Amino acid sequence: MADMSDSSELSNLLVIAHQLADAAGTIALKYFRSADCGMANKLDHGFDPVTRADREIESCIRSMLDELRPDDGILGEEFASRRGSSRFTWVIDPIDGTRSYISGTPVWGILIAVNDGHSVVLGMIDQPFTGERFFGAGNRSWLSRAGNTVRQRTRSCARMEDAVLFTTFPEIGTSAERNAFSAVSRCARLTRYGMDCYAYALLAGGHIDLVIEAGLNTYDIQAPIGVIEASGGVVTDWNGGSAMNGGQVLAAGDARLHERVVSILRNSADH
Amino acid sequence: MADMSDSSELSNLLVIAHQLADAAGTIALKYFRSADCGMANKLDHGFDPVTRADREIESCIRSMLDELRPDDGILGEEFASRRGSSRFTWVIDPIDGTRSYISGTPVWGILIAVNDGHSVVLGMIDQPFTGERFFGAGNRSWLSRAGNTVRQRTRSCARMEDAVLFTTFPEIGTSAERNAFSAVSRCARLTRYGMDCYAYALLAGGHIDLVIEAGLNTYDIQAPIGVIEASGGVVTDWNGGSAMNGGQVLAAGDARLHERVVSILRNSADH
Repeated sequence: MADMSDSSELSNLLVIAHQLADAAGTIALKYFRSADCGMANKLDHGFDPVTRADREIESCIRSMLDELRPDDGILGEEFASRRGSSRFTWVIDPIDGTRSYISGTPVWGILIAVNDGHSVVLGMIDQPFTGERFFGAGNRSWLSRAGNTVRQRTRSCARMEDAVLFTTFPEIGTSAERNAFSAVSRCARLTRYGMDCYAYALLAGGHIDLVIEAGLNTYDIQAPIGVIEASGGVVTDWNGGSAMNGGQVLAAGDARLHERVVSILRNSADH
Repeated sequence: MADMSDSSELSNLLVIAHQLADAAGTIALKYFRSADCGMANKLDHGFDPVTRADREIESCIRSMLDELRPDDGILGEEFASRRGSSRFTWVIDPIDGTRSYISGTPVWGILIAVNDGHSVVLGMIDQPFTGERFFGAGNRSWLSRAGNTVRQRTRSCARMEDAVLFTTFPEIGTSAERNAFSAVSRCARLTRYGMDCYAYALLAGGHIDLVIEAGLNTYDIQAPIGVIEASGGVVTDWNGGSAMNGGQVLAAGDARLHERVVSILRNSADH
């Protein structure tokens, strides 16, 4: 999490992020569990559902940013990127976990992040159905629900055998990636699946210890980076480098555990 | 779902089920995401967490039933069964999805069912954190949330290639069971993981089409049977027989799809 020299600028960005999430959540809930969520298929082969809600939310956020932050860049899932003249870029996933969304589960989320070209300065994971908003900025992180806002921190967990590990798909990535994941999973106390962005929020709140995924996009991970780094956790790629551009992602609540997992993933790749 | 000759008896059972779920939910939320959820380990090997909440909820429900339904039997997860003198038995899983519960996710639930020795006459899946209560009795099923109660029905889905399939663990059962599951999964439009009892509730509400699991206990499945059968769906074992005693479970929203999946599972077992 970068230091912001101008904390009033950060406050301003945070207020706007809340406005964007409020508007996005209203649209997401309008279509959630309805027959006309407008599922389409982006791929000729395979199954990559895009919902009407996805596109309507991103359009809404973009038009709000056109008015409120016209100089900032925008990177979203559904439409072309906009290069800005300021140092800030908004990174938007209108619905992370579209498969969860179209299946009616409560673990999808609206992801909003701001980066300054070097690091994420603000991250927000909003879950409108449960009413939870996880957000972090300037080395502080909060969970807001039902008018109640509380600080959140990752938990201490140094040893692999104590760690609770999450990933979304068991069929994570390539076969080499699956093997590397399994090497970590075998050492963990518990491995669970299917939580999409909600797993990163649970890590930020100190309920779980690790999230490992592969094949992520920039817009999938910048909001989790913002929330988790502000909660005291670490998010990198599987080699310990930057995860800002997605790909293989390793999130840990405790830096000692993070170091241990990088080593397991590296040893697995060497064999 | 059995016909009840005495519908006032069914109404009485339903009122009591709501009272039990209200009391159970209060206890479950008191410990949810708290540091003192009192996780213990039932097994010497492996990881079978039992929380303080599990035991406190089942004790509470048992003492309420002692007073309200002293003649009925009780079958629960945590304590010894009680044989009743009436034809009814209450089947209780105080927290289904203990692993989900201790990880802070919102997909665990309190399961309450009543059977008459032949079939389930009432089922309830309560999710206190999201505030959703799914319940079915006498061929009718409802979802109650925030003071609003709506009827629910499974959805029509006759073809495997349109089906959305859920299971909790990808490492489902034995290797033969895994292969059989994979044979179904390969034909489905989408396979998702990690939802515990919440998947059965989504099926009852018409959001997904199939749930396939193995190694279940009686108390894991009777409440889902009650909710799903009352919603128009079918719950059996993998051979199409009764699932009342747990084991291999197949739940489908559409009887045509159910028949198709039994055939796939059977063919897989033959090879």
